Amino acid sequence: MESDDIKHCREKLRKDARAIFEAGLMAVKPDVALRKHISLASGTLKIAAHDVPVRDRRVFVLAFGKAAAAMAQTLEQILGEHLTAGIAVTKYGHAENFRSDKITLYEAGHPLPDENGVKAAQKVIELAHQAGEDDLVLVAISGGGSALLSMPAAGLSLADKQHTTDLLLKSGADIRELNTVRKHLSAVKGGQLAAAIAPAQHYSLILSDVIGDPLDFIASGPTVPDSTTFQDARTICEKYGLSDRLSQAVRDYLQKGVHGNIAETPKQGDAIFENGACVLIANNLQAAQAAFDKAKELRYNSMILTTNLQGEARELAKLFPALARDLLERQDPVALPACIICGGETTVTVKGKGKGGRNQELALATLPGLAGLACCTLLSGGTDGTDGPTDAAGALVDDQSAAQAKQAGIDWQDYLAQNDAYHFFAQAGGLLITGPTETNVMDLQILLAAQC
Amino acid sequence: MESDDIKHCREKLRKDARAIFEAGLMAVKPDVALRKHISLASGTLKIAAHDVPVRDRRVFVLAFGKAAAAMAQTLEQILGEHLTAGIAVTKYGHAENFRSDKITLYEAGHPLPDENGVKAAQKVIELAHQAGEDDLVLVAISGGGSALLSMPAAGLSLADKQHTTDLLLKSGADIRELNTVRKHLSAVKGGQLAAAIAPAQHYSLILSDVIGDPLDFIASGPTVPDSTTFQDARTICEKYGLSDRLSQAVRDYLQKGVHGNIAETPKQGDAIFENGACVLIANNLQAAQAAFDKAKELRYNSMILTTNLQGEARELAKLFPALARDLLERQDPVALPACIICGGETTVTVKGKGKGGRNQELALATLPGLAGLACCTLLSGGTDGTDGPTDAAGALVDDQSAAQAKQAGIDWQDYLAQNDAYHFFAQAGGLLITGPTETNVMDLQILLAAQC
Repeated sequence: MESDDIKHCREKLRKDARAIFEAGLMAVKPDVALRKHISLASGTLKIAAHDVPVRDRRVFVLAFGKAAAAMAQTLEQILGEHLTAGIAVTKYGHAENFRSDKITLYEAGHPLPDENGVKAAQKVIELAHQAGEDDLVLVAISGGGSALLSMPAAGLSLADKQHTTDLLLKSGADIRELNTVRKHLSAVKGGQLAAAIAPAQHYSLILSDVIGDPLDFIASGPTVPDSTTFQDARTICEKYGLSDRLSQAVRDYLQKGVHGNIAETPKQGDAIFENGACVLIANNLQAAQAAFDKAKELRYNSMILTTNLQGEARELAKLFPALARDLLERQDPVALPACIICGGETTVTVKGKGKGGRNQELALATLPGLAGLACCTLLSGGTDGTDGPTDAAGALVDDQSAAQAKQAGIDWQDYLAQNDAYHFFAQAGGLLITGPTETNVMDLQILLAAQC
Repeated sequence: MESDDIKHCREKLRKDARAIFEAGLMAVKPDVALRKHISLASGTLKIAAHDVPVRDRRVFVLAFGKAAAAMAQTLEQILGEHLTAGIAVTKYGHAENFRSDKITLYEAGHPLPDENGVKAAQKVIELAHQAGEDDLVLVAISGGGSALLSMPAAGLSLADKQHTTDLLLKSGADIRELNTVRKHLSAVKGGQLAAAIAPAQHYSLILSDVIGDPLDFIASGPTVPDSTTFQDARTICEKYGLSDRLSQAVRDYLQKGVHGNIAETPKQGDAIFENGACVLIANNLQAAQAAFDKAKELRYNSMILTTNLQGEARELAKLFPALARDLLERQDPVALPACIICGGETTVTVKGKGKGGRNQELALATLPGLAGLACCTLLSGGTDGTDGPTDAAGALVDDQSAAQAKQAGIDWQDYLAQNDAYHFFAQAGGLLITGPTETNVMDLQILLAAQC
């Protein structure tokens, strides 16, 4: 018979894990993050260390990514009457509270681009072209922008891009690789939006969803000098054995690019970047630090292990039961009650036909390792609130998860084999539901262990 | 131009990493570990908390595993004239310094069993049967014993066992899974040696090479009650899709076992275990702790992250560049100069035709992630000194490894794709060569980072 203490402890850990995750989330909400870096006083916009006059000039906002609606709305609130017009492009369902007279909202497909993304990108480029020498453009960039702002390069179709994105996503390519290819099939990515905005002054306000915060990879860096080349893009396609599976148009386009018959994306030193600057407004580390502070407040001995976790979700998952065992058996590297926080973004090489996301898959893959380890809990969640194509942010697991599954008459191994973590947790319990959070700084894993 | 400081720092880190690894190794050498737990005074052998008289009775030593030669020799030194006779079975090349008049040495194949292993097992069983009610048998067990002590069950051939072991090793099965199957195809594993020794008194002195130190999995637990069944063994073969690839004899044998037509291995509570006990004399944690002490002595801010690391080597590898980045950029979770130690045993799903081992493969897979990260070094090494079928214990990598490879005209991706880490490091530099260490408590990873 299991003691009430253990049951109580398990419930508390699950509740605390959620609270710690939500504290991380709150710190990287666009309004909180933007207001830390941008303020308006006496007709001057202070953007980090830059003083930018906004009186007697037109000010445009171009926002795209999963946080676009909230970022645009906050900028509108800060700018007030100084805002001229704007466009926000976000993922379906990520703009529920959006209200604006001056900013037009578009919703589009993610992670696969769709026709609405193409239309929205067209509008963004049109507005960018309208901006003249005396105007100011604030570009609010967040993760997801690569798919949401989709403008196939001349000679390519949306279908070509969808197909290429789909192949890369399923092959286990990481976001740097994916975006290197995307930049070289696009008319807007890899600094090309900056080319459309120039000669207007522009500031990019960036919410990072890429490990290491490399600005030219976030949303495929539409306003940032591109550090990659057509050759890099082709090498990545070869690495994943996709050369023969790409459409003929994509193959031809990359081939022409490699041979210099298509202009490279804008590079460091190009004049179009002279009248612009980038400001990183939030990243995974800030979320991890806020989670850490909350864990300390809840009296956990806490540690941020890394904010750079990457790799195949189901394999990296094995780290967490390993850590849990050391915590419970030896109170090392931190004493109980303990909290170890990881940040980053894992990947999933899809082999099955199920439904899930990297966080749910990671959580599911810890299940055998957590068996017998009372009391500890792992939460893995995406800060955007939508892990893969699901309505869950991620999932929570503990030593009871396997038993709950058994009770529900399902076997975790079948679901993991099918990449079907969503349906596993929907039946066994453990889905982490936050709704779309209107932000996106990758994922957090929160491992809690206590003496029960 | 790179500064001399960086070069000097890199050299120092490589040297320190080796020293820390060797300190870990020294602590788990059989003579050091055995003498911590066993001593003789006035005709009484003290084995942990047990007082065992050795006067006027016959005392036999049965040793098998990669540490068998050193364990047997140390026991002979401790027992002196009280030793009657013994047998030691170890891997080829793991007994260079062995000298004994009373203990017969056999060398045999590992990780695949061979004819010499079968002959040696026959001798071990014969000696076990000679031991009577009044006799004492000291069984020295270390990792590798599963392959080295090979006695196919009735109706099975060595070829059947070799083929099954080979399939499981290449499928990525972990050691618990592998040994569950081995126990159910053997006449000596899974408690069956204890059956041969009974009614003699017996103590098993165990050097653990399995995560969590489950005594019945180390060397397939020949003197320990078996917690697994024929059904478990068959389920594991099915899990890796081997059902159709096993030999007909193996399939028939497992089938008969599942249906109760062959006796199960001895289980908890069986009388044969009444006159015996097991003592764990060294494990991975002890090696990690000694490495930790050495790192502190060398002034590194140190942490044992886990002693339970497992999973696919090339994926878990990604943890180390992630940790290195946090150490170098944020001095978190420990300040620079920093040392993070992991212990455990990863696995490799072999897809290529190259030569390597899990430690060399893990080191090779960190290479892209370490690019640009001066100064940090990762060492991954097996405490047995022979990583996979190679003469290296593992390898060291740092931010220069990729450049060294380029200079040697080779590409790390090709070698990783072929599971050919040994030939990569042999050309690019970085092999960790210790020679056979005559011990085996799995692997250590040592990550060092410093300000240079």
